[in-house]
Amino acid sequence: MKPQNFSGESSLIQESKRTVGENFRQMIKAAMVAVDGRGSGSSRPISNSKEIERRNGNMGYGSDQKKEATVIDGKAIAQTIRSEIASEVRHLSDKYGKVPGLAVVIVGTRKDSQSYVSMKRKACAEVGIKSFDVDLPEQVPEAELISKVHELNADPDVHGILVQLPLPKHINEEKVLSEITIEKDVDGFHPLNIGKLAMKGREPLFLPCTPKATYLVLKSERYSKIGCLELLSRSGINIKGKKAVVVGRSNIVGLPVSLLLLKADATVTVVHSHTHDPESIIREADIIIAAAGQAMMIKGSWIKPGAAVIDVGTNAVDDPSKKAGYRLVGDVDYKEACKVAGWITPVPGGVGPMTVAMLLKNTLEGAKRVIKQ
Amino acid sequence: MKPQNFSGESSLIQESKRTVGENFRQMIKAAMVAVDGRGSGSSRPISNSKEIERRNGNMGYGSDQKKEATVIDGKAIAQTIRSEIASEVRHLSDKYGKVPGLAVVIVGTRKDSQSYVSMKRKACAEVGIKSFDVDLPEQVPEAELISKVHELNADPDVHGILVQLPLPKHINEEKVLSEITIEKDVDGFHPLNIGKLAMKGREPLFLPCTPKATYLVLKSERYSKIGCLELLSRSGINIKGKKAVVVGRSNIVGLPVSLLLLKADATVTVVHSHTHDPESIIREADIIIAAAGQAMMIKGSWIKPGAAVIDVGTNAVDDPSKKAGYRLVGDVDYKEACKVAGWITPVPGGVGPMTVAMLLKNTLEGAKRVIKQ
Repeated sequence: MKPQNFSGESSLIQESKRTVGENFRQMIKAAMVAVDGRGSGSSRPISNSKEIERRNGNMGYGSDQKKEATVIDGKAIAQTIRSEIASEVRHLSDKYGKVPGLAVVIVGTRKDSQSYVSMKRKACAEVGIKSFDVDLPEQVPEAELISKVHELNADPDVHGILVQLPLPKHINEEKVLSEITIEKDVDGFHPLNIGKLAMKGREPLFLPCTPKATYLVLKSERYSKIGCLELLSRSGINIKGKKAVVVGRSNIVGLPVSLLLLKADATVTVVHSHTHDPESIIREADIIIAAAGQAMMIKGSWIKPGAAVIDVGTNAVDDPSKKAGYRLVGDVDYKEACKVAGWITPVPGGVGPMTVAMLLKNTLEGAKRVIKQ
Repeated sequence: MKPQNFSGESSLIQESKRTVGENFRQMIKAAMVAVDGRGSGSSRPISNSKEIERRNGNMGYGSDQKKEATVIDGKAIAQTIRSEIASEVRHLSDKYGKVPGLAVVIVGTRKDSQSYVSMKRKACAEVGIKSFDVDLPEQVPEAELISKVHELNADPDVHGILVQLPLPKHINEEKVLSEITIEKDVDGFHPLNIGKLAMKGREPLFLPCTPKATYLVLKSERYSKIGCLELLSRSGINIKGKKAVVVGRSNIVGLPVSLLLLKADATVTVVHSHTHDPESIIREADIIIAAAGQAMMIKGSWIKPGAAVIDVGTNAVDDPSKKAGYRLVGDVDYKEACKVAGWITPVPGGVGPMTVAMLLKNTLEGAKRVIKQ
């Protein structure tokens, strides 16, 4: 097929590359570690070209079946990005006397939501973003929540508004979310943002955080390698022309990730609850994005040797050996996958920390648009 | 995989079904014809259950290799839809004393654009939609075109605005299109429309015409069969769970068609200029949407026996035997495809007339929203 109608990578994607590209030296040290398959330690940085060559090679393992996947350490990459954000926040503060502000709204007392919210607020504090805490009771009327959103829309010190989901059943989530002004929609869930994300030649104000994180995780690996060893710049996790399979099609992850990968020139297939024989489709993928919300659904045998596996799932499974009585696992059977994949993100410690970093980054970007005006 | 996060078919999709469902008896007579593979005639309605059984069966041909694909006669289906629109327009006129109005704006003297525009204006006249003709010279300044759009936005008798593309090089298309108020964006190209089309639980004000046409062509076949012979209602062109491959990813066809098919529960892959080995991916498809703009790119050998092939391409190829010196062909090698596919749309006479019908339908819908208020 001849190239047709493609206007090249968007500047948003280019921007993401720059962000990562600038820091590949630190990242390669922190992020490219090989672990023992349980994600528990004994990590060793990849430091010699033979090892990297083997991992890239044909994106497979050939005779070297016992080697493990390269683990993409989202926590380490996120830490680097957060340091950058902190330094930009300091710069804004010094130059303009203003800092970015993020309103985090929570309704009710769901434990998981509370834990996510407190993590986000803590992350804000660490980088110098002012957190506006709005805690509303479970029974708050929808109208009251909406009027709170309007108040935050009007507050010039608030540059991003996040309403923690899910909301209680008596509240219409869609209605509440569409009240957030698009200039402060740091979650990127507004349909106008999604439409611009989908369309060639258009760019959203904000990319949804998890898709942005997923994309950056993929790209960081690629750029790390370019920085590390020019020889390998054309192998590894290159998105263009690769077969990408996105498992799940939620508005907040699966759908926007698939749109983003399509814009980055992957050949994208979306697999979902009505797909016949998902294994056979997933097995063809060079890049797997697991976002189905099904604990350990994707088995080692479903993965093409050498594929890049980005696990967006976070599922609690019973585990009496843990104090909490449960542990978190992804949508991928990590232990099995490590034996087959070329690259993999662990759960926890993969996409999760990156998503929080992207929320901070979106807030910073929103603030810069306003403050620098 | 267990069902997850899917909120069911949107009412927009259901609405499309109803429109077609109501009329399947007329449609089955008009639309389901088998032709001789050149699309030139000798058509015969499918009228006996054995024939339909053979055509559906395993969606393939087995020992019966010489049989031809069922041709989906878009012209006939479009005619039925246009009759319905005409009757609704009469009803509006009788009850409210108002008719829908469509502004068709053309800049310059491109022959193909002029021919499309005159076709659209003629189609308006036939169903009683008032056409507002705006013909601007090639050199019109961008600002003047935009101020014309603003004027049409404000005109209460205009319910739809269509700016014929492409525009001359000195004019920024995206800028002009985004000046059209979303309530009159009958082409459905506004990013807010595309975002809502993409997202679960959201619905666009207008579906872009060609994707809407494509969807309806697929559905009409299905509903024809259900009406015709209950026995076969679960075979044939059922979208849910089927493998659909969309070839091309333009903002106006490929992208929105893929989003629509995903919403209708197909397993969707988008193939484009950077896809490696497109044949092998297309060969897996139960439903092929050809929208690459490459004359006869898709060969018979690329098609899975029994697949439904919807050809959105319209390409002019030299043909000295024609008075005009050229003829129009699709993205599919029609003659070859007829021997392999289960269903196929011809070019011309397939998706094209349906697209014009959808433009009229969108204009009617826009007008009803305003007039009935």
